[in-house]
Amino acid sequence: MKDRFDFEVVDLDDADSALVIIDQTKLPNVTEFLHLHSQTEIWDAIYRLQVRGAPAIGVAAAFGIYLAAKEIISELKKASDGKNFEFIEFSDRFKKASDYLNSSRPTAVNLSWALKRMGTVVSTCKGDSPDEVISKLKAEAYAIKQLDEDTNLAIGENALSLLSPCMGLLTHCNAGFLATTRYGTATAAMYLGQERGYGFHVYCDETRPLLQGARLTAWELSRSGIQTTLLCDNMAPSLMREGKIDAVFVGCDRVAANGDTANKIGTSYVALAAARFGIPFYVCAPSSTIDGSIPNGEAIPIEQRDGSEVTESWYERRMAPEGIDVYNPAFDVTPASDITAIITEKGIFRGPYDFTQMN
Amino acid sequence: MKDRFDFEVVDLDDADSALVIIDQTKLPNVTEFLHLHSQTEIWDAIYRLQVRGAPAIGVAAAFGIYLAAKEIISELKKASDGKNFEFIEFSDRFKKASDYLNSSRPTAVNLSWALKRMGTVVSTCKGDSPDEVISKLKAEAYAIKQLDEDTNLAIGENALSLLSPCMGLLTHCNAGFLATTRYGTATAAMYLGQERGYGFHVYCDETRPLLQGARLTAWELSRSGIQTTLLCDNMAPSLMREGKIDAVFVGCDRVAANGDTANKIGTSYVALAAARFGIPFYVCAPSSTIDGSIPNGEAIPIEQRDGSEVTESWYERRMAPEGIDVYNPAFDVTPASDITAIITEKGIFRGPYDFTQMN
Repeated sequence: MKDRFDFEVVDLDDADSALVIIDQTKLPNVTEFLHLHSQTEIWDAIYRLQVRGAPAIGVAAAFGIYLAAKEIISELKKASDGKNFEFIEFSDRFKKASDYLNSSRPTAVNLSWALKRMGTVVSTCKGDSPDEVISKLKAEAYAIKQLDEDTNLAIGENALSLLSPCMGLLTHCNAGFLATTRYGTATAAMYLGQERGYGFHVYCDETRPLLQGARLTAWELSRSGIQTTLLCDNMAPSLMREGKIDAVFVGCDRVAANGDTANKIGTSYVALAAARFGIPFYVCAPSSTIDGSIPNGEAIPIEQRDGSEVTESWYERRMAPEGIDVYNPAFDVTPASDITAIITEKGIFRGPYDFTQMN
Repeated sequence: MKDRFDFEVVDLDDADSALVIIDQTKLPNVTEFLHLHSQTEIWDAIYRLQVRGAPAIGVAAAFGIYLAAKEIISELKKASDGKNFEFIEFSDRFKKASDYLNSSRPTAVNLSWALKRMGTVVSTCKGDSPDEVISKLKAEAYAIKQLDEDTNLAIGENALSLLSPCMGLLTHCNAGFLATTRYGTATAAMYLGQERGYGFHVYCDETRPLLQGARLTAWELSRSGIQTTLLCDNMAPSLMREGKIDAVFVGCDRVAANGDTANKIGTSYVALAAARFGIPFYVCAPSSTIDGSIPNGEAIPIEQRDGSEVTESWYERRMAPEGIDVYNPAFDVTPASDITAIITEKGIFRGPYDFTQMN
């Protein structure tokens, strides 16, 4: 794997003292790794999208709270001359650090999920030595990381079973390895196919306004040797009409019980075009993103973001009039009827969707 | 009108010695008028898209060849001590100047159409005095300009007959007054509606890669007092799903005999979404853009433009990896089946299209 994914999106450094991430705000121009030591630095990196993608954020938070726990224990040791380990005080301060990290991006479900898992480990540590606590937390953080990779691999295998060599594939936004720890979700079958000589040609929507497709997906796919072509979001139907696209793969932020899927703005447009041209449209979803408590897409709240993302971001000079009103929803909902299948690590689901049998 | 369209997109200066255009490459940040005297300056301005939009280019060429004719006559007068007017030599040099201007953007049909009209005037001038030739050419150039305004007004009246007050309208790219001499085509009903208190809310697709919607349409509509909202191209279906859009208006580059319409890339995507949501999709087309010699959209050649427009234009730093392959068609074809009506200055046409009765 190391040859293809020749760096870790999220990891600890060798000295076990810093969270190391690739700064996604600087890609594709600069490949820079950040070594983050303090809780404030880690909070900032998540908030500023230097690490992004729900699974990657979850793993970053797990490593972050692990480093925080080590620091708290070290301070407690110092305060007690290294003799006592006040578990109650440790647990209390751990909880505060966890709440702080969790506030960096309140909408990312994996962030709170990973911190909750780390907290559960702490709750089983009463009576353990400081070294045992540290060791258990480190193991849990790496388990969370490994689970993400295993999930993506299983999604990739399931997705690849639907594909043939030399197909043209389209993806929107970045649900790639940069958004996870390895393989990505929407890209997992692309990487597996590449390893097995499928010779896919992958087309990437640039994904306005923040250009995750142009900056991140086109970068990670092309550098791994996959034939990659970039296009503006409005060009997808032309490609489809030309017969270049055999299947569409996207990630998702949340899937409702009926299969309606919230994902990056523009996803539902691609689905609509795919339906028109009879092209399969696949949503790649870790089972954790399927939210059975939400009946359908209308119940999914859609975040409206600042208009400056549209009028200014990535531009040195404005590209729209001063003061212009802007419509800028961050996500849209693709109706289940436009989705050919939802591919999870636990299998491939087709409509009418019933995820209750999943577990 | 002067209060709404408080400048001329294309005109002669008061001294009758320069073509004056608003530099569209600098909008919306800088409002700068260029005074162009020489044929080279005028050729460059058309080539560099400082004046753009097929009708505006046609008028610019008409004024441009008029100024060239004046210069040629002045030189001929000097060479003959002001005594003789060698019509054959004038006509020959006029033809060369016309061919030169016509080469600035060979694909714009209005450019060659306007130059041909000016050439026809010259062919009727044998025996006229130099002043008479100059006067006839100036009159013809202004007639071409007036014809454009009259055409747009008629398109606007026809389009407005389909609309009700307070409607939400969506447009793509710029088929506005900046692309013409006044009113625009897709925007004509918006301006007429504004004059008559319709209170339209117009939504503008930003139109990647060159952002004509964000830079030009949002600018010209909002400054005229129309309620204007900008969105990225991939957000249109979200707006439609929310019930914000009652009708879509777009311009066109060429309409085939069966109604298939070539227009700015992304137009067919909007049409596809409008069809899905049951929203009327109108193409505004001066009758001169209907090309009966082309049976359908498949016969319309689609220009592929340089990938740097996608990866670099308007950006100080690259927004995609170095060397990435880019798909960048400048236009797409909207099938007639997705078009509710084609609105010309001669009436409203609906499918199955038969334009043979038009004239």
